[in-house]
Amino acid sequence: MGHLLERIDEPEKLHDLTVEELGELAGELRELIVQTVSQTGGHLAPSLGAVELTLALYSVLHLPMDKVVWDVGHQAYAHKILTGRLERFRELRQWQGITGFPSRAESEYDAFGVGHASTSISAALGMAIARDIQGRGDHIVAVIGDGAMTGGEAFEALNHAGDLGKNLIVVLNDNGMSIDCNVGAMSEYLSRIRVAPQYNRAKEDIKDFLRSIPHIGDTVVKTAEYIKEGVKSVLVPGGLFEEIGFTYIGPIDGHNIRLMRDVFSEACMLDGPILVHVRTKKGCGYLPAETEPDKFHGVGKFDAATGVVHKDPSAPASYTSVFSDALIELAKETPNITAITAAMPSGTGLKKFAEQYPKRFFDVGIAEEHAVTLAAGMAASGLHPVAAIYSTFAQRAYDQLMHDVCLQNLPVTLCLDRGGIVGEDGPTHHGVFDLSYLRTMPGMTVFVPKDESELRDMLYTAVHMDSPTAIRYPRGAGLGVELSEGFHEIEVGKAEVLSEGGDVALLAVGTMVDAARKAAALLAEKGVRASVVNMRFVKPLDTDVIDRFSDEARLLVTLEENALAGGFGAAVTEYLADAGIKTPVLRIGIPDRFVPQGARKKLLESCGLLPEQIADKIMEKWTGLS
Amino acid sequence: MGHLLERIDEPEKLHDLTVEELGELAGELRELIVQTVSQTGGHLAPSLGAVELTLALYSVLHLPMDKVVWDVGHQAYAHKILTGRLERFRELRQWQGITGFPSRAESEYDAFGVGHASTSISAALGMAIARDIQGRGDHIVAVIGDGAMTGGEAFEALNHAGDLGKNLIVVLNDNGMSIDCNVGAMSEYLSRIRVAPQYNRAKEDIKDFLRSIPHIGDTVVKTAEYIKEGVKSVLVPGGLFEEIGFTYIGPIDGHNIRLMRDVFSEACMLDGPILVHVRTKKGCGYLPAETEPDKFHGVGKFDAATGVVHKDPSAPASYTSVFSDALIELAKETPNITAITAAMPSGTGLKKFAEQYPKRFFDVGIAEEHAVTLAAGMAASGLHPVAAIYSTFAQRAYDQLMHDVCLQNLPVTLCLDRGGIVGEDGPTHHGVFDLSYLRTMPGMTVFVPKDESELRDMLYTAVHMDSPTAIRYPRGAGLGVELSEGFHEIEVGKAEVLSEGGDVALLAVGTMVDAARKAAALLAEKGVRASVVNMRFVKPLDTDVIDRFSDEARLLVTLEENALAGGFGAAVTEYLADAGIKTPVLRIGIPDRFVPQGARKKLLESCGLLPEQIADKIMEKWTGLS
Repeated sequence: MGHLLERIDEPEKLHDLTVEELGELAGELRELIVQTVSQTGGHLAPSLGAVELTLALYSVLHLPMDKVVWDVGHQAYAHKILTGRLERFRELRQWQGITGFPSRAESEYDAFGVGHASTSISAALGMAIARDIQGRGDHIVAVIGDGAMTGGEAFEALNHAGDLGKNLIVVLNDNGMSIDCNVGAMSEYLSRIRVAPQYNRAKEDIKDFLRSIPHIGDTVVKTAEYIKEGVKSVLVPGGLFEEIGFTYIGPIDGHNIRLMRDVFSEACMLDGPILVHVRTKKGCGYLPAETEPDKFHGVGKFDAATGVVHKDPSAPASYTSVFSDALIELAKETPNITAITAAMPSGTGLKKFAEQYPKRFFDVGIAEEHAVTLAAGMAASGLHPVAAIYSTFAQRAYDQLMHDVCLQNLPVTLCLDRGGIVGEDGPTHHGVFDLSYLRTMPGMTVFVPKDESELRDMLYTAVHMDSPTAIRYPRGAGLGVELSEGFHEIEVGKAEVLSEGGDVALLAVGTMVDAARKAAALLAEKGVRASVVNMRFVKPLDTDVIDRFSDEARLLVTLEENALAGGFGAAVTEYLADAGIKTPVLRIGIPDRFVPQGARKKLLESCGLLPEQIADKIMEKWTGLS
Repeated sequence: MGHLLERIDEPEKLHDLTVEELGELAGELRELIVQTVSQTGGHLAPSLGAVELTLALYSVLHLPMDKVVWDVGHQAYAHKILTGRLERFRELRQWQGITGFPSRAESEYDAFGVGHASTSISAALGMAIARDIQGRGDHIVAVIGDGAMTGGEAFEALNHAGDLGKNLIVVLNDNGMSIDCNVGAMSEYLSRIRVAPQYNRAKEDIKDFLRSIPHIGDTVVKTAEYIKEGVKSVLVPGGLFEEIGFTYIGPIDGHNIRLMRDVFSEACMLDGPILVHVRTKKGCGYLPAETEPDKFHGVGKFDAATGVVHKDPSAPASYTSVFSDALIELAKETPNITAITAAMPSGTGLKKFAEQYPKRFFDVGIAEEHAVTLAAGMAASGLHPVAAIYSTFAQRAYDQLMHDVCLQNLPVTLCLDRGGIVGEDGPTHHGVFDLSYLRTMPGMTVFVPKDESELRDMLYTAVHMDSPTAIRYPRGAGLGVELSEGFHEIEVGKAEVLSEGGDVALLAVGTMVDAARKAAALLAEKGVRASVVNMRFVKPLDTDVIDRFSDEARLLVTLEENALAGGFGAAVTEYLADAGIKTPVLRIGIPDRFVPQGARKKLLESCGLLPEQIADKIMEKWTGLS
């Protein structure tokens, strides 16, 4: 750990450092971040890119009085270290350690909890409003990446902020990419202004130029005046932001601390909403991350010296990669399949699809709402779009799923990757509410595969259905089962009975099928026979199988890696109540609280979802019955 | 009905009419729309504003091969009449009649179902993609209002469409207001370009002007070149759209059929995404609606001759107005209360608040996502924001409620107006899923008042809590109960027992409390005694009261005006299962399908939610038990 870093126990101390010392500190921060993340995994490249930006900003602002909202928050490791979490940084993303994202519960310096993209300007504007009502004068800053800027909520907030005119600084941290290569017209627009003349020089030149505009003649005088107004708004690059009420400053070099300090100081003295456009390099200062910024966007453990990412060669193929291959295979036979991602071509496995079928692949940027309505539009015209979206981010498209897909009964297949507990990314990223909300949508079929081979068959079944479907599968490695040759249709709404004749019936979905099998083995050791049913569908529910096992068994157990509130188990209790079935039910799932960060197994344990814990709970209930 | 109108049984016939005849037809359409809506209620002013636009567009396009997606769809009455629904138009918004919005199930001319704002460009882009994959050459048009343009999804779609470069026409139907006065920087931007020189003339002038730009000297040559590029993008007004890849044409007079036909024909021949900016007048051609366009945006029955809206002087105060008055009263004592609406100041009753507390009131435009995160930002800085959003539109902010409000446990109060069945606006507008999703959010308190007086007390309680709260109340008149003086705190999670000692216990929330009382009276006539409990909270559930009545009664009945899937009754069955309580339960609520349009009572009947139907269901179940 560097000697300067040790002196910074609060960000106010940054004011005492010279620009040269801040530069030195940047090096120390970078080293600490690389070393730590090589051990813990995490969002390396974004955080490396924002080191100088953080230092420049914090040496101008007075935290925590002034407030900084980091959009997404995956670039905020320097922020964490500089705001009193130097010692704890080694526990990054670990169980009971510090979270990978800013969190109000963790530090007074974390002005606003983040994780999902495009919220920062809204939150910062809310704080600016509060400040003005309360009569304070602090500075409020939102730092948002060019990727997050494509999210509709960011635009809604810009639109409101530009109109309100409150003092507010938006720092556009533009590295020309979000996670993978950036897409969209906004991105192209930023590319254009990124190569524009440097800030200040241009401004002066343009003033001269404007003065020189001649009045050309009577017929065009009015038009010329009008154009002069127009020209003003593109005086400096960033006319688009000026058009909606922001003062635009930039683009400036986001690794030049001196320049940024000057600009941020200037921005603090200006009135109204300011947008400072900062150009940064993702992964800056660590060659492997500079070279492959998408690989090091969010990364597992790696060798800090070489940048080689640790991979377990014996680990089974991930659900994501099985999905990826299966979709490519299906697309060959089924020409109306298209694939959609919201800025996650690598994460969702669609990158391979894109290479094979570039004209049938669409990366819409961070824009889940648009992704789903776009899919609905495609489906209304005879395509069968497959939208692969992380479960937690699909929450953004709740309304579009309901209003555009289900209400019109359109054949859109939603592939919810990262369903359930994701691990170290923590509470903002677990996908544990999807089964609850999807099953309330009329006409939706909700598939939950027990393993990666079943995922293949479910995908096959879904893309041949003429109604809305969702397939929900977990992050990471599959069970390592053999993948079937070709595809097999799965009967919709029919469960798979894995073992029967037990006194207890375990009705499980998804990852919990394997846990149920293991729990059944443990129960058998204790003399309790348990049947195991892979329910396969949360909707429609296989009520026949429930009828049968409520007769056969003396205890039903529902198992899901989803919120107990409204989830699969709730669906079962609804059915039992409606059918007047009195067989007791034990519901096992995620209790009614947010799950923190940590290793997946640790988190499952914290929810009581390990096979031994499941067996214990069942034994306790069973004993109570007898 | 006009003689021209009778000849148009399909839109293709419009091609045979002269511009003069189309003008005449506009008059006939207007008269029919005014006459019909005066009887049925509906979205009068938006539809009147779009009559000439529809005629011009449809006399150029070839429907249904070409496709038009109407954003929101409340401006599409002329579309409905011209696409084979002239005869059925009198059944507008009626039970088993035609819907108030385009609906794929209703007509092949309704290319995409709409109701919520800002979806049209996404859907149209999806169709354009499908067209190109399938190798067709039809034209695809999205018609979107300036209000809907503020929704983030519209921006996401523009961003994607501008990048993809596919042939797509977006018609911006700009009447300078959405429902109430428009807000936001985009709106100001449009106001500026609305007064810009007329299309074409300006374009020519500007070409001359550009040619005349001199090279001023060596030092600024490069800058001048750069600016020239910049100027090109503001050549015509609409530089903002040009910046993100659209060809902008406009602004043009949206009541000049000849001009629009020319422009739409031209747009059809251009390649790539085109934005045609059309200026229209909301309510055009019907003086009362022109004068008070917000009053006639969505209106009930009125006198067509005078524009006087029918009001029942004996009708009790609406929930909305009781909420409005209560919030103003509370804001007096509680200075940290602010109020937020997403473009519905009149509809949510916040207009009065805005007049009284202009600095504490925020209309964010059609932008529910931003509204909720903005509220979270305010709450993080010590305010207590009250966001009043129609239940159906709050679906847009599912993720923000979960991720920004609940995860941070922030004191935001969400007031869900129009909860439950709303009536004539139909399936896109019923708010029947909110109880299901809100109760899955950890830390959320969900209040459901049984009447307008309880709404006051719940609001009082909620704004004094330091955690997320939601209050859900129905559209329209309250029960006419006396409003209490001042406010009374309601104990969180405690039900109100209205009558006890019955063999059957009716556990009801919201509007269903009154229905339960009436059903209990009917049951009493049949010799069955029923207790009635106003549960007040869907979360936290009053499990004490459930325990007590499961002991006391032989049948529990849950009643809610919400989806049965995952709703209040589901919460009760979850609890009963967990507690091992075997008292039978009958769940009464909305079945797992979308509810169509019609009079509220008719729709309640279709769901079996009228008191007599409830009593009958209970009798049937009761008889089965005995």
